[in-house]
Amino acid sequence: MSTGENEITKWFAANSTADGERFPIGIGDDMAQLNLGGGKSVLITTDMLLDGVHFDLEKAGFESVGYKAMAVSLSDCAAMATLPVAAVVSVALPRGVSIGAGSEELKLLHKGIVRAGEMFDCELIGGDITSWPKPFAINVAMLSEPGPTEPVRRSGAKAGDCLCVTGLLGGSPAGKHLHFVPRVNEAIAIAQAGATAMMDISDGLSTDLNRLCTNSGVGAIVEAVKVPISDQAKKAEAPLAAALNDGEDFELLFTISEDNFQGLMGKWDMEVPVTQIGVVNNSGRVCIKNVSGEVSELVSGGFDHLREKR
Amino acid sequence: MSTGENEITKWFAANSTADGERFPIGIGDDMAQLNLGGGKSVLITTDMLLDGVHFDLEKAGFESVGYKAMAVSLSDCAAMATLPVAAVVSVALPRGVSIGAGSEELKLLHKGIVRAGEMFDCELIGGDITSWPKPFAINVAMLSEPGPTEPVRRSGAKAGDCLCVTGLLGGSPAGKHLHFVPRVNEAIAIAQAGATAMMDISDGLSTDLNRLCTNSGVGAIVEAVKVPISDQAKKAEAPLAAALNDGEDFELLFTISEDNFQGLMGKWDMEVPVTQIGVVNNSGRVCIKNVSGEVSELVSGGFDHLREKR
Repeated sequence: MSTGENEITKWFAANSTADGERFPIGIGDDMAQLNLGGGKSVLITTDMLLDGVHFDLEKAGFESVGYKAMAVSLSDCAAMATLPVAAVVSVALPRGVSIGAGSEELKLLHKGIVRAGEMFDCELIGGDITSWPKPFAINVAMLSEPGPTEPVRRSGAKAGDCLCVTGLLGGSPAGKHLHFVPRVNEAIAIAQAGATAMMDISDGLSTDLNRLCTNSGVGAIVEAVKVPISDQAKKAEAPLAAALNDGEDFELLFTISEDNFQGLMGKWDMEVPVTQIGVVNNSGRVCIKNVSGEVSELVSGGFDHLREKR
Repeated sequence: MSTGENEITKWFAANSTADGERFPIGIGDDMAQLNLGGGKSVLITTDMLLDGVHFDLEKAGFESVGYKAMAVSLSDCAAMATLPVAAVVSVALPRGVSIGAGSEELKLLHKGIVRAGEMFDCELIGGDITSWPKPFAINVAMLSEPGPTEPVRRSGAKAGDCLCVTGLLGGSPAGKHLHFVPRVNEAIAIAQAGATAMMDISDGLSTDLNRLCTNSGVGAIVEAVKVPISDQAKKAEAPLAAALNDGEDFELLFTISEDNFQGLMGKWDMEVPVTQIGVVNNSGRVCIKNVSGEVSELVSGGFDHLREKR
């Protein structure tokens, strides 16, 4: 997993001068945290989505794009088991998009943004609009507050923990990526049950599990037969590969002790399934056991923006 | 000033459902404010800067662009007399920019970002990197905290107030826009002296004064002879027009009672000059008195991203 995105993140984190008391969580997790004192803190995430990379504006339309841009950040809030609070949105409009109070495009974009935010009481509180003779770009920066637990980081997984995911994986690029529901509520319940590490699956299980294990300094073994594959991915030529690598699932990947996993499952009453797909270990390697029992390295084959686009 | 950017802002503000206690300042000011309870609050601003619109990457280079992107947001913190705390930065890299820990471009960008932030103890705490076969785009979302006073809004100007600016205006696009120093310290001193309204001049005095007056429900008259013109603007064919309209000055525009203005000037010891350029009134019109004493409407002729680009 020495791909560009990970290397850069590591370099930026190593060059950060942020004080650990003021900023308990910095570069390299799903959100950064600012400690304001008096028991108050906020977390922040930023994501830029680009026409032709993260969506096809002509096919998707402005409302879906507004929804997705917000949902991606809401999923980051979920990844840390935090409660979304507010967002600011910057957009770069291509020429030809009508401007002003009567703009249908901007009203649709706004509708999508607000629809996503309203699911989790996340308000649109500011923005920036500019235009250029290039494709549409949108950036959402979102604030959240800790939920009932401390924010759950990527770095707390321990050998022996159950490795789990929410939902079904794969096939998202075929459509789900535009209208997925961020797992904010599920994340709170999982954190309350004692999750030791958590993140959202944005670049595919194979890539993101490698990240979680690197951050936690652990290894893991995934059992291929246990990976929950979406109906969409089942239609693919290689359903398991689709589930491992397609990316944009925006499901939760988390670790939790065996006891706490039993506790979680005992009272789980949400529609979204939770599946144990493997176990955390001290091997330092991320592996997958296939149907015939053969174990091989789970290579980071997910979507890496930088590697795939270059 | 019925230009696109103002209309949109108004429409978004009118369609906001944000609660006034939780969000004391929302859409339409330089930053939005989130009240966390217990006397704690944070403010947030977002700005997207685009190659070919806000800078010429090939001429400016990555370091200057990183500096400017941060400085623009720091200037928003100054506009409200708040203290910068932290920033998250998203970038869309064009093809051809090397990626990874060894990337000279990314190290230069980082250098510029950190250099701007360090001036005011503003930490880089997170980001997002993606790439596409289009020009470079960068978004900075910045958090600040209130300074010694409440945040100063655009809406508090009163008839009789002195209308003032910091620094010298005009000519910024010729170079200053890449290396200006945000007026964070000056803003704190001005707020402590009792400023009634404040904003930063990003789109030109003529445009931004109209915005301030609209937000405050007042009029104003500017005396042309009092407008402080930069050396760069003095070289222009129409120096006053340059000072009024060039934009990207990133100086402060503020209003303050006559008494408090005297108090401010009596103890002003900063290098940056403060100049009274006019008076706030109840006319509902924004006017300028020229050298021969003739009064005319001060038309919003500054840089409007949307109008000028279309």
